[in-house]
Amino acid sequence: MGYKSDTIAAISTAMTTSGIGIVRMSGEEAFSIIDRIYRGKKEKKLSSEKSHTIHYGYIVDEEAEIDEVLVLLMRGPHSYTGEDTVEIDCHGGVYVTKKILETVIKYGARPAEPGEFSKRAFLNGRMDLSQAEAVIDVINSKNEYALKSSVEQLKGAVKKKIDVIRNDIIYHTAFIETALDDPEHIEIDGYGKKLKVVVDENLLRIKQLLDTADDGRVMREGIKTVIVGKPNAGKSSLMNVLVGEERAIVTDIAGTTRDVLEENIQLQGISLNIMDTAGIRQAEDLVEKIGVDKAKLNAGQADLIIYVVDASLPLDENDYEIIEMIKDKNAIILLNKTDLSTVITKQMLKTKIEKPMIEISAKEETGIHELENTLKDMFYHGNVSFNDQVYITNIRHKTALKAAYESLMKVNDSIENQMPEDFFTIDLMDAYEALGSITGETIGEDLVNEIFSKFCMGK
Amino acid sequence: MGYKSDTIAAISTAMTTSGIGIVRMSGEEAFSIIDRIYRGKKEKKLSSEKSHTIHYGYIVDEEAEIDEVLVLLMRGPHSYTGEDTVEIDCHGGVYVTKKILETVIKYGARPAEPGEFSKRAFLNGRMDLSQAEAVIDVINSKNEYALKSSVEQLKGAVKKKIDVIRNDIIYHTAFIETALDDPEHIEIDGYGKKLKVVVDENLLRIKQLLDTADDGRVMREGIKTVIVGKPNAGKSSLMNVLVGEERAIVTDIAGTTRDVLEENIQLQGISLNIMDTAGIRQAEDLVEKIGVDKAKLNAGQADLIIYVVDASLPLDENDYEIIEMIKDKNAIILLNKTDLSTVITKQMLKTKIEKPMIEISAKEETGIHELENTLKDMFYHGNVSFNDQVYITNIRHKTALKAAYESLMKVNDSIENQMPEDFFTIDLMDAYEALGSITGETIGEDLVNEIFSKFCMGK
Repeated sequence: MGYKSDTIAAISTAMTTSGIGIVRMSGEEAFSIIDRIYRGKKEKKLSSEKSHTIHYGYIVDEEAEIDEVLVLLMRGPHSYTGEDTVEIDCHGGVYVTKKILETVIKYGARPAEPGEFSKRAFLNGRMDLSQAEAVIDVINSKNEYALKSSVEQLKGAVKKKIDVIRNDIIYHTAFIETALDDPEHIEIDGYGKKLKVVVDENLLRIKQLLDTADDGRVMREGIKTVIVGKPNAGKSSLMNVLVGEERAIVTDIAGTTRDVLEENIQLQGISLNIMDTAGIRQAEDLVEKIGVDKAKLNAGQADLIIYVVDASLPLDENDYEIIEMIKDKNAIILLNKTDLSTVITKQMLKTKIEKPMIEISAKEETGIHELENTLKDMFYHGNVSFNDQVYITNIRHKTALKAAYESLMKVNDSIENQMPEDFFTIDLMDAYEALGSITGETIGEDLVNEIFSKFCMGK
Repeated sequence: MGYKSDTIAAISTAMTTSGIGIVRMSGEEAFSIIDRIYRGKKEKKLSSEKSHTIHYGYIVDEEAEIDEVLVLLMRGPHSYTGEDTVEIDCHGGVYVTKKILETVIKYGARPAEPGEFSKRAFLNGRMDLSQAEAVIDVINSKNEYALKSSVEQLKGAVKKKIDVIRNDIIYHTAFIETALDDPEHIEIDGYGKKLKVVVDENLLRIKQLLDTADDGRVMREGIKTVIVGKPNAGKSSLMNVLVGEERAIVTDIAGTTRDVLEENIQLQGISLNIMDTAGIRQAEDLVEKIGVDKAKLNAGQADLIIYVVDASLPLDENDYEIIEMIKDKNAIILLNKTDLSTVITKQMLKTKIEKPMIEISAKEETGIHELENTLKDMFYHGNVSFNDQVYITNIRHKTALKAAYESLMKVNDSIENQMPEDFFTIDLMDAYEALGSITGETIGEDLVNEIFSKFCMGK
């Protein structure tokens, strides 16, 4: 898939002040450009140095020295992009890093588009599309599980799983087509029965991958968690304890929180996107009423609801409304204010609703550890094992897997209805194509461009 | 100055999402630590690889793969710190970069303090103190001139200038002391006259360096620019034109701006810290009155005042107050609202005050280019030449130069008053010490620690 490439350049580090900044170049001219703007102690040109070596010197534009740098040389195809690549490690100031980028552009590179280095890696066959997508997942991963899952994918774990299924499909498609072409020598009668076994096996494989998609999303994006409860139950106090700072305004006045506050927090490797909401009650104030409606809407879309009960007061109609609302949802019930004398017990609540219950005191910060453990059990079935589990974390992959699944189901329908064999191959090939779009083997240029445009600059 | 060093580690890139992140280690254990957490294609240990080479592989903790990385090896003394140094280039996510730092710390490195890599470079004699300070100046430089000046200093330009003076001083101090020890053989009568020539020459050298300090500060920090004018003269409109966005609220109502708004802007390589202030008038509103007082205070401390005159209206008492205020300051007068029919001309104003005047229209954005050119002329005497000019940009250096200057003045006093020769040497040595503190040759550990604590993490 090689192609003649111009030379691209970008700043690969963040555009804020730091110790080191990196300007990266990739393409046919990368070495000749660095030759013209590098001045080291030796007379030797960098382009004649060995690959994978580091050189101390200055970046210069004619006589003007721009910065003291280290230059990294990586000759294609043994580089990230598969092309000649030069990395300039300079001082990590915004102005100086930009100035070096401007200089390489002045000498012939062009500014890279977001994700263009990774796109070239894909186009040059250095990685499949699912691996390239894993690059961004590694960068964006916010917890241990997400990182592990992304690194597995980066190593090609998703591609391996997909390839097994695709190989099965193409083998049988080819057999059927060959048989149809040469009916005298190849027997195909009753092949449907044999094919069904193969299709069922692969349906199961796809289903197993699809089953990981929800865990995968939760891993990657965090658990969408909504705190609900009646006014003054201690929701904002809980939020503040979990976040570890005074994020929400806490007062004794019921109805203090009206807007929805959102924070991402980490509890022992678990990522929660946690939302504090208005206390649910029949509000009279218009702004509060809007807040209550928002709270209900968010609760409806949540992965997890944390229902905070004020254990120092009897349940009231607002509690009953909430209990009704969360019945069929993933929820944890926290009996708050255990620092006060309480009137609500777990036993009493269990007659109304069956959910994990934990006694806490947001004020004294007790019970939080038990909450973490309960969350872990709910979302990662105890311990997440990465031995041979591949997690689908990408909506694009999930969609493609679903399409492949449906195509294979159609093959089974055709077999059951004793349709002619060429009907099988059409749906088999649809499944094959759908799966190939995950690894990028069957995918249009537009989609490739769209995928890489979501990358960050310089990657 | 070598010392036995433990191994330090830090993230040298910014803690925000980007293409590449760098974790850096320096010290005796750097190679043995990377050996235990790196897994590449080859069996060979990284510690047995050549210096200044790059290696592709994974960072692992036992069996768990943390990220796909490039590892850079630089063996001391040919590294930034002068010690064995390892840089791990990983994916630029916050979590993954932290995780790699945690891993190197788990295997025996300790977290570096801010600036500790540069401090080691200084302590190991890889750079003098003025060079180490230039590292931070390069990182913080916000314009072409500041960058050039900092890179010159990084190359040792300040040290060279200082060394010339110090060498002169130590030579003559040594001569006097030898002569006093051995009066029979060395003639010292009348040496004062000879010494005065040397002292005068070095006073001149120091003065020339001190003279660059103001330019140096302006280069590094930007020109402190305050926009003044009576209410509704168009100050906020000018601010918005210069900043290139709607930074200040603009209305037709006089007295709209009350607080002081500050922005850093770049005009053709010139950095302005520009402040929009309340219109100066006899305010009745208390908040506005505070604003007017603040405007006057800031104008008093400014490097440059931009006085915006509403050229469509006759001058009034507020204008006369401003003219009085800026008389002895660096100021540019802008005759604004040239898009309307104007009643004020340059000629009329010149009878009241002698300052550069430019006709502009903030509304139609005319005259801005002329403003830039005028600024360049005022602050950089046309073109800044870096041929052999060294700029003092550091307040610490300026203070030390002043102290040295005063000590040399005392030497001249002693010569004039025909004091005994050993009086000369005391003040000569004071000057010598003061100058040595710039390069770090005569400086206490506390001050060294203080200087490096201002560095950013990972540098």
